[in-house]
Amino acid sequence: MKNVAIIGATGFGGLGLIEILLRHPGFTIRQLVARKDTGKKISDVFPHLRGFCDMMVQDGAEIDYDGIDLAFFSTPDRAGMTLIDDFRKRNIPVIDFSGDFRFHSQEDYGVYARNKGMEDVHLAPDSIGEAVYGLPELNAEKIKKARIVGNPGCFAINMILALLPAAAAGIIESQTIICDGKTGVSGAGKNPGEANFYPQRHENMNTYREGRHQHLVEVENIVNGACGGGKKILFIPQIVPINRGILMTSYMQIASGHTTASLIDLYRNYYRGKPFVMVTETSPHSADVRGSNFCKIRPFIDPRTGMMAVISVIDNLLKGQSGNAVQNANLMCGYEETAGLMQPPFYP
Amino acid sequence: MKNVAIIGATGFGGLGLIEILLRHPGFTIRQLVARKDTGKKISDVFPHLRGFCDMMVQDGAEIDYDGIDLAFFSTPDRAGMTLIDDFRKRNIPVIDFSGDFRFHSQEDYGVYARNKGMEDVHLAPDSIGEAVYGLPELNAEKIKKARIVGNPGCFAINMILALLPAAAAGIIESQTIICDGKTGVSGAGKNPGEANFYPQRHENMNTYREGRHQHLVEVENIVNGACGGGKKILFIPQIVPINRGILMTSYMQIASGHTTASLIDLYRNYYRGKPFVMVTETSPHSADVRGSNFCKIRPFIDPRTGMMAVISVIDNLLKGQSGNAVQNANLMCGYEETAGLMQPPFYP
Amino acid sequence: MKNVAIIGATGFGGLGLIEILLRHPGFTIRQLVARKDTGKKISDVFPHLRGFCDMMVQDGAEIDYDGIDLAFFSTPDRAGMTLIDDFRKRNIPVIDFSGDFRFHSQEDYGVYARNKGMEDVHLAPDSIGEAVYGLPELNAEKIKKARIVGNPGCFAINMILALLPAAAAGIIESQTIICDGKTGVSGAGKNPGEANFYPQRHENMNTYREGRHQHLVEVENIVNGACGGGKKILFIPQIVPINRGILMTSYMQIASGHTTASLIDLYRNYYRGKPFVMVTETSPHSADVRGSNFCKIRPFIDPRTGMMAVISVIDNLLKGQSGNAVQNANLMCGYEETAGLMQPPFYP
Amino acid sequence: MKNVAIIGATGFGGLGLIEILLRHPGFTIRQLVARKDTGKKISDVFPHLRGFCDMMVQDGAEIDYDGIDLAFFSTPDRAGMTLIDDFRKRNIPVIDFSGDFRFHSQEDYGVYARNKGMEDVHLAPDSIGEAVYGLPELNAEKIKKARIVGNPGCFAINMILALLPAAAAGIIESQTIICDGKTGVSGAGKNPGEANFYPQRHENMNTYREGRHQHLVEVENIVNGACGGGKKILFIPQIVPINRGILMTSYMQIASGHTTASLIDLYRNYYRGKPFVMVTETSPHSADVRGSNFCKIRPFIDPRTGMMAVISVIDNLLKGQSGNAVQNANLMCGYEETAGLMQPPFYP
Repeated sequence: MKNVAIIGATGFGGLGLIEILLRHPGFTIRQLVARKDTGKKISDVFPHLRGFCDMMVQDGAEIDYDGIDLAFFSTPDRAGMTLIDDFRKRNIPVIDFSGDFRFHSQEDYGVYARNKGMEDVHLAPDSIGEAVYGLPELNAEKIKKARIVGNPGCFAINMILALLPAAAAGIIESQTIICDGKTGVSGAGKNPGEANFYPQRHENMNTYREGRHQHLVEVENIVNGACGGGKKILFIPQIVPINRGILMTSYMQIASGHTTASLIDLYRNYYRGKPFVMVTETSPHSADVRGSNFCKIRPFIDPRTGMMAVISVIDNLLKGQSGNAVQNANLMCGYEETAGLMQPPFYP
Repeated sequence: MKNVAIIGATGFGGLGLIEILLRHPGFTIRQLVARKDTGKKISDVFPHLRGFCDMMVQDGAEIDYDGIDLAFFSTPDRAGMTLIDDFRKRNIPVIDFSGDFRFHSQEDYGVYARNKGMEDVHLAPDSIGEAVYGLPELNAEKIKKARIVGNPGCFAINMILALLPAAAAGIIESQTIICDGKTGVSGAGKNPGEANFYPQRHENMNTYREGRHQHLVEVENIVNGACGGGKKILFIPQIVPINRGILMTSYMQIASGHTTASLIDLYRNYYRGKPFVMVTETSPHSADVRGSNFCKIRPFIDPRTGMMAVISVIDNLLKGQSGNAVQNANLMCGYEETAGLMQPPFYP
Repeated sequence: MKNVAIIGATGFGGLGLIEILLRHPGFTIRQLVARKDTGKKISDVFPHLRGFCDMMVQDGAEIDYDGIDLAFFSTPDRAGMTLIDDFRKRNIPVIDFSGDFRFHSQEDYGVYARNKGMEDVHLAPDSIGEAVYGLPELNAEKIKKARIVGNPGCFAINMILALLPAAAAGIIESQTIICDGKTGVSGAGKNPGEANFYPQRHENMNTYREGRHQHLVEVENIVNGACGGGKKILFIPQIVPINRGILMTSYMQIASGHTTASLIDLYRNYYRGKPFVMVTETSPHSADVRGSNFCKIRPFIDPRTGMMAVISVIDNLLKGQSGNAVQNANLMCGYEETAGLMQPPFYP
Repeated sequence: MKNVAIIGATGFGGLGLIEILLRHPGFTIRQLVARKDTGKKISDVFPHLRGFCDMMVQDGAEIDYDGIDLAFFSTPDRAGMTLIDDFRKRNIPVIDFSGDFRFHSQEDYGVYARNKGMEDVHLAPDSIGEAVYGLPELNAEKIKKARIVGNPGCFAINMILALLPAAAAGIIESQTIICDGKTGVSGAGKNPGEANFYPQRHENMNTYREGRHQHLVEVENIVNGACGGGKKILFIPQIVPINRGILMTSYMQIASGHTTASLIDLYRNYYRGKPFVMVTETSPHSADVRGSNFCKIRPFIDPRTGMMAVISVIDNLLKGQSGNAVQNANLMCGYEETAGLMQPPFYP
């Protein structure tokens, strides 16, 4: 049994971790740390946790490094980079939810940061090289040995899983891959404001950060790494009035000779042994994965145009965030990759 | 390990059972039976179950009585009464989800049936006397020995749990108790039609069957049994645009001398040892229990008028239906009452 | 043609006024004033207005009193009382949307203010006596002559219209009338925060300010004025996940001898000649009035308990706010009461 | 004043017509005809119409051809083709809402019909040549003289308006244009069933008829007509949980030398004098046009990839259906194109 601390416990990322770890056979939550709501019970912040987790939320100054074997930083951008040294010097492995440890160069981090409108100088540059990009379907072996894991962005996870088999097979011919992404409102975190004001979101949908969403950099890095380079992605994110879920439709030209059946084979072979990716022959609904750590993917050829399209869905808070993080933690700790994560989706 | 059959597996009641029993330590699903979708995999009916439960849906004619220790009838009204004899003669205990086994007299059943606009003659009258009303918080001892359990209506469970401590304490003075109930759309089951047509339900709310909802009879029976009789309930149900959840506000005059604090004590004492009822000092939200088997109840005195009000919430598909049914099954089989049911709520 | 200013133009109240006045035959909007977003076009604040109203939002310091014949204060509590003198001394009639001018005594205002958790000293006490409570169905003659009209609260309008005919007929016997009110999220105005954060509101419902909502004072004043006094109201407001709409269920004991048919006659007689109140024999849905200035009311007797219940619906932003305000303005200016307001509801 | 009949009055198309025509200065509704609900008042079918339109719904056998100057067929596919002769021989102009009169060849109709899974033989082939495709932004002069107008599909209107200026300018270089379309649930009409069952749609999104939606044929016809041919469209429609609205994202490669600014000029020039198309520099939300006949379009160049993208929104029930139909009727009758249609959007 490993003891963990959750830094950033009062957001949706922290909440997701708590819910998973409560039923996890190998992790015990020892500390909940946050900036807001310190001194309250976590079940006063999230009343549905009453009776399941009534721990106090502590201030960052009170972290008891001796009592923990692993830490989750479910913190906003630029928090992890100020915290990392205290964990590194004690050799406590860390999984960070922000963009702080997803990149291997200051340049890439800079593009990411500027897309989000943030300060673009990384504050812990020496830790960058050590960090592993935390997508278990791609980097399982590296993650097993990692001390710093950068948990990917929710949209990024969906896009990468949708594109990776085709990229790795070298069949993508388009220079520009189109990814049209639809997300529920929880994707923006637990930060009430105009963008997630109920009367503004209900019965509404819209695009935003068209072509310049911050998750683009990491997706292009991975896709180009898999296919040998030269691809760009045009990604238009959209918000739709649901709480949870991402539905991605991706479009690309591919080498001739492929059929829907051969693509399904290709994808199934690629994801063989990956417990959370299901390649389907019918179109997945976002509700088919809500509340679970699964990604469902349907690749096909449009017979009229010959283009390849991929439909893929995840729950942005689970496979897109805390579920994927626990999957990383399982690998890092030598547990079964699926430990604590085999919940069926929640429907209706 | 007990083997169970679910008769009526393709509705929301059946689905709820499947989801709970998949993680239950003491039950194994052996047969899924339904009228529609026979010959399909249950995961073709509910794609989110793929990989978790891919059993075939069988026709009622194919029930293998020898292989099952317990049966759930998650069937519509008047199905259970035609099925019951085949189970009774084989001594297989049954939990029925409809009104078929909630009443101890043909008269009461008749009122129930006419309120729903159905044929009002019970087809298995000799089984009526044997059936136990399946509310574990009230009838745990009887349920442990029962062979036929009538699982209560979702609204009824909420109303009874909200009123029972006050009724049993004999403090209710109103002749008429008012229950104003709000339910999500799944309460009407998986029966697409005008009443749950998306454009008709979304951004809409309305009352229906005002003062003559079919769950009234059972609630008045239980409340009058607890307080000595003479009470009537005016219940106005309402549909609001959510998937799951019941929020009930109940109003009554009570004997003088009570305070909010004394009522909370009264309720906590009454529900001591009842693992799924939580008496709270702040108003519960329906989202505080969604996805769980809990009922949260807040009783209080309105200081301006002296009236007592009770706010109570359940998930209509869990504590209001399949969760409560498994709680009954646990009692009938000598398991822990909470076995398979200690899921925290699903939020957001 | 009268020239009007809207003070508080960038909230939902101001928006509602703009939308109505754009199609009104007797009013021209001359000035839009607000604290936020000054210097922007109103169509930059509300993009759907583009092409319909592109006026600039002005600062309060720039009010041109000479150019306006009437002002709407669609401002928060305690703004109108600081603005009123400048309008009063120029004899410009005013309709205020807050609680500032709904009460005839400092005492009543104080209760209202404390229920909302505000400072309770009225800053323009000499204007209180002059103000008229702006419910056209009750006070049309007074409103015609008024210079200051306090537009009622949205819940208050619904409750009063539901209770007034019974109160005026002297048939209510309960000391305590129960009003169970459900509102959409826009009722809290355009103020993004935790209470209207999308993931918190979607798929959720809850009660709040139970028995102490600020609209209680005005409702009890009017109801007691109509019936001779002695009545209290127990009002439990609730938020449901829709944008617009109030559904109220009211309960009371009444004098014997009444039937549903006689109540419908009583209500229809009372509202004869009131163009925006429709008394119905079937239960109104909130969607039946969304987008319109109508109130639909169904009174009936529950035959089992003998109690009277009333189901009533309004659009909280129209009959509950800006529609009612324009109805007042029509009366004040000698226009047809319905001018600009005969829009059918918006469905689906 | 022209007298009109609405054939198919009880669906969403008929309802939309009624709502618009009630406020239209040039049309009077004389007859409401439908298959279902005949003998009822239309306000019993749609209670929100009470007091605004209480006409009886008549059977098709009772059409009084003498009393009408124009007919709307808001009927399902294959109804108009059986009705058309009785109107044609009396020279009554007709606007049909289905695919019956959108094509100029039996071949095209056949593809359309097979995509929808219908019988593919047209039953009134001699009327095909006479019919005009009812998109006023493209065919205003032809519509003015037409006797049979095929009102386009809702998705088709959105796609065509998004692509037409680029197509007409000859700048599209992609062979395959990608259109990723998101629609609200009312797009499938007033036909309760599994696909629009509330618990199935709420908190869910999914693709359907990927690459083979029936609106494709008409869009390719128009786009190829404008650009000289050779283009195909890959269209993936999606359903999101809102009542009304279409959000389309379209992607294509274009000739070099264009900038976002030059595209905006191109689009604004193309739509100069078209009262219902607004070309915007910021991304339109579906809520910006809900309840109105407007289409808002934002074309831009993605600087990283050089691709052109277009974001476009309409209300599927208005510009996508009945609003566009009345726009056609205005042209056919020599009225102002905007008569009865200048409603601002409905927000929130």
